[in-house]
Amino acid sequence: MSKSLPSLADLQQQHQAFIDAKLSLDITRGKPSSEQLALADTIDGILSGNYKSSDGTDTRNYGGLDGLAAAKALGAELLDVPASQVLVGGNASLTLMYQTLSFKRMFDERWKGDIKFLCPVPGYDRHFAICEELGIDMINIDMTVEGPDLNAIKAQLEADSSIRGIWCVPKYQNPTGITFSDACVTGLVELAKQYDFDIFWDNAYAVHHFDPNDVDELLSIWQEAERLNAVDHLWCYASTSKITHAGSGLAFLAASTTNLSWFKARLGIASIGPDKVNQERHIRFFTQHTSLEQHMARHAAILKPRVDCVLNTLSESLGHIDGCRWDTPKGGYFITFYGPEGTASRIAQLAGEAGVKLTPAGATHPYGKDPKDQVIRIAPSFPTLEELEQAMQVFCVAAQIAIAE
Amino acid sequence: MSKSLPSLADLQQQHQAFIDAKLSLDITRGKPSSEQLALADTIDGILSGNYKSSDGTDTRNYGGLDGLAAAKALGAELLDVPASQVLVGGNASLTLMYQTLSFKRMFDERWKGDIKFLCPVPGYDRHFAICEELGIDMINIDMTVEGPDLNAIKAQLEADSSIRGIWCVPKYQNPTGITFSDACVTGLVELAKQYDFDIFWDNAYAVHHFDPNDVDELLSIWQEAERLNAVDHLWCYASTSKITHAGSGLAFLAASTTNLSWFKARLGIASIGPDKVNQERHIRFFTQHTSLEQHMARHAAILKPRVDCVLNTLSESLGHIDGCRWDTPKGGYFITFYGPEGTASRIAQLAGEAGVKLTPAGATHPYGKDPKDQVIRIAPSFPTLEELEQAMQVFCVAAQIAIAE
Repeated sequence: MSKSLPSLADLQQQHQAFIDAKLSLDITRGKPSSEQLALADTIDGILSGNYKSSDGTDTRNYGGLDGLAAAKALGAELLDVPASQVLVGGNASLTLMYQTLSFKRMFDERWKGDIKFLCPVPGYDRHFAICEELGIDMINIDMTVEGPDLNAIKAQLEADSSIRGIWCVPKYQNPTGITFSDACVTGLVELAKQYDFDIFWDNAYAVHHFDPNDVDELLSIWQEAERLNAVDHLWCYASTSKITHAGSGLAFLAASTTNLSWFKARLGIASIGPDKVNQERHIRFFTQHTSLEQHMARHAAILKPRVDCVLNTLSESLGHIDGCRWDTPKGGYFITFYGPEGTASRIAQLAGEAGVKLTPAGATHPYGKDPKDQVIRIAPSFPTLEELEQAMQVFCVAAQIAIAE
Repeated sequence: MSKSLPSLADLQQQHQAFIDAKLSLDITRGKPSSEQLALADTIDGILSGNYKSSDGTDTRNYGGLDGLAAAKALGAELLDVPASQVLVGGNASLTLMYQTLSFKRMFDERWKGDIKFLCPVPGYDRHFAICEELGIDMINIDMTVEGPDLNAIKAQLEADSSIRGIWCVPKYQNPTGITFSDACVTGLVELAKQYDFDIFWDNAYAVHHFDPNDVDELLSIWQEAERLNAVDHLWCYASTSKITHAGSGLAFLAASTTNLSWFKARLGIASIGPDKVNQERHIRFFTQHTSLEQHMARHAAILKPRVDCVLNTLSESLGHIDGCRWDTPKGGYFITFYGPEGTASRIAQLAGEAGVKLTPAGATHPYGKDPKDQVIRIAPSFPTLEELEQAMQVFCVAAQIAIAE
């Protein structure tokens, strides 16, 4: 059912009013708000001068390449894997991903020369940037409501033997918010085994629900990979960046014993070991201060009104306009808006003129190229609710103008 | 003047007594002692819930690839460079070094294929490990009392156009404790410019004196490089690993504007930015709690008796034995013992049998091969003074046996 748009003249008048108001709003990046960050502010000082871990380790000194046992257990909880398979890194899972791909590129013969990655789109720009930096060609794979399109993947694998990996954000995907179905998880493992490529499983939003009573369930890919004897095709990542403090959290890698031992041999050359003091802070925080579940419920309470604001504004202004759609995720950090083909760049341009910074159209696709120019990622977490409301008004007017034009 | 050794039988009896005592001592790695680490224990909690940096940055959130301004200033003080040229990394300068070399290897055409590094010996095993990992061939350059032998370097450069870099620990060198002379610093810059290679200047012990009233002065290589228009040949590193807490300090890279901008373009793909909360802790520690100078004087007071213990024991037991020598550094973390040729492995073996772990003979040389088998690095910082005295007794008996044999 299509609703008619306001007249272009009316829209342009509204747009001009926003320009005159000299707004400066930013809904580009998935950054937690100050309010969210403050939930973890007791983490500095939580050690009370006792730097010993429960296993006796002096966290202040060198050593312990793969992390404290209790920190591994935290990673295991996030990733739904055995703690023995977890390595605790620094403050960014992105760094662990870059390290995995760059180590592979440098030291794995099968990764030399012209190789390719499958990239579900829309997806996470920083994944694509790693491939581009390392000279790994990228193939777009459309996201369906169940996850990446397995038939499209299979067709690519049949046609091309140089595919070595796939990027996945399996839960509350960045940016669609979609959680992969059980069939999709199993299908990916089967294909990885059959066609000998690796799955890079960036489970960044494993516990990041908008409402603790209405959550998506993700099938454990680790268990599936074990069942199908394919754990060597799996690299899993998570972090506490959107749990405690964004820039000073813990990152986790989980992999098979073979892969982990190979990775550690490489990492041992590049590192004197992770920051164990910060690991111990996180361990104490989630044992003494709060549980992970309680803590994430507090995040949800802050995020949900923002997400509702975006969804409600979109519904009101663009709900019945042909060619406009979006998903209604139950978690994560983003809402993805799909406009009619050829409108995304223009929407971003119009919003920018009115002082609202949007993620550059195309950023959700490899090489920054959205072939249909229709996807815009909206990140509602960082602004205040009032700022967000204003930004979404601007967004909707910009979208209406772009469509009317 | 040569002093005669005790009889081999006497020595073997002493050795057996040590074996019977079932010692378990370790003088292998340059790890700070608990007493030293405790000097910085107020660093956790120093923020008192205020995570804002003096420039207004919310240190908890993402961003700021090159670090907080005040953290850069701390790095600049350590490295004797302008703060504008400093990037603040994670908890390890080794990681910044690995990143520099691996980025160069992957993305700099001049670093592809068969290339070589000059390696002053004895030197730091982890530098050599990076080269080995990245397939960079290493050429030994002997250390003199003024630093690496410039004539030997020049001869290599004349003979070989594939040399791309040199590793240097210019102050209180690891492991000799030697500080490079002014002529050596200037000479290195001149050669780097003339022969187009880079200097990797690991100034790990810039302020790590054993006695604040008796220190070595190092000529500023940055100023020399600017004077000679050669800053693009310079990569400088430092960290607070042996200043605050070994595993959770800050690392620093200083480089020319061109090099820094290239490095940041690469790093931006691999990182979401450094841990700014930990940077802010360090900033507050060195503004509110103590000065860097006062703090290092406290380290010196703990280290000096240990260093004296090693030097005194060596003098007493091996002081006048032909072929034995060592340097008497004014700072750093090591004392290097040179035995007669062909004895180092045997000394390490005998000490190990008596429960004293020494750095594997050869570890101070590329590929783990000390061509004369005569260098042993002694690390006195970690054990208690009592343990160290015992370990040195064992060491000297082991050395005497190896020489007597």
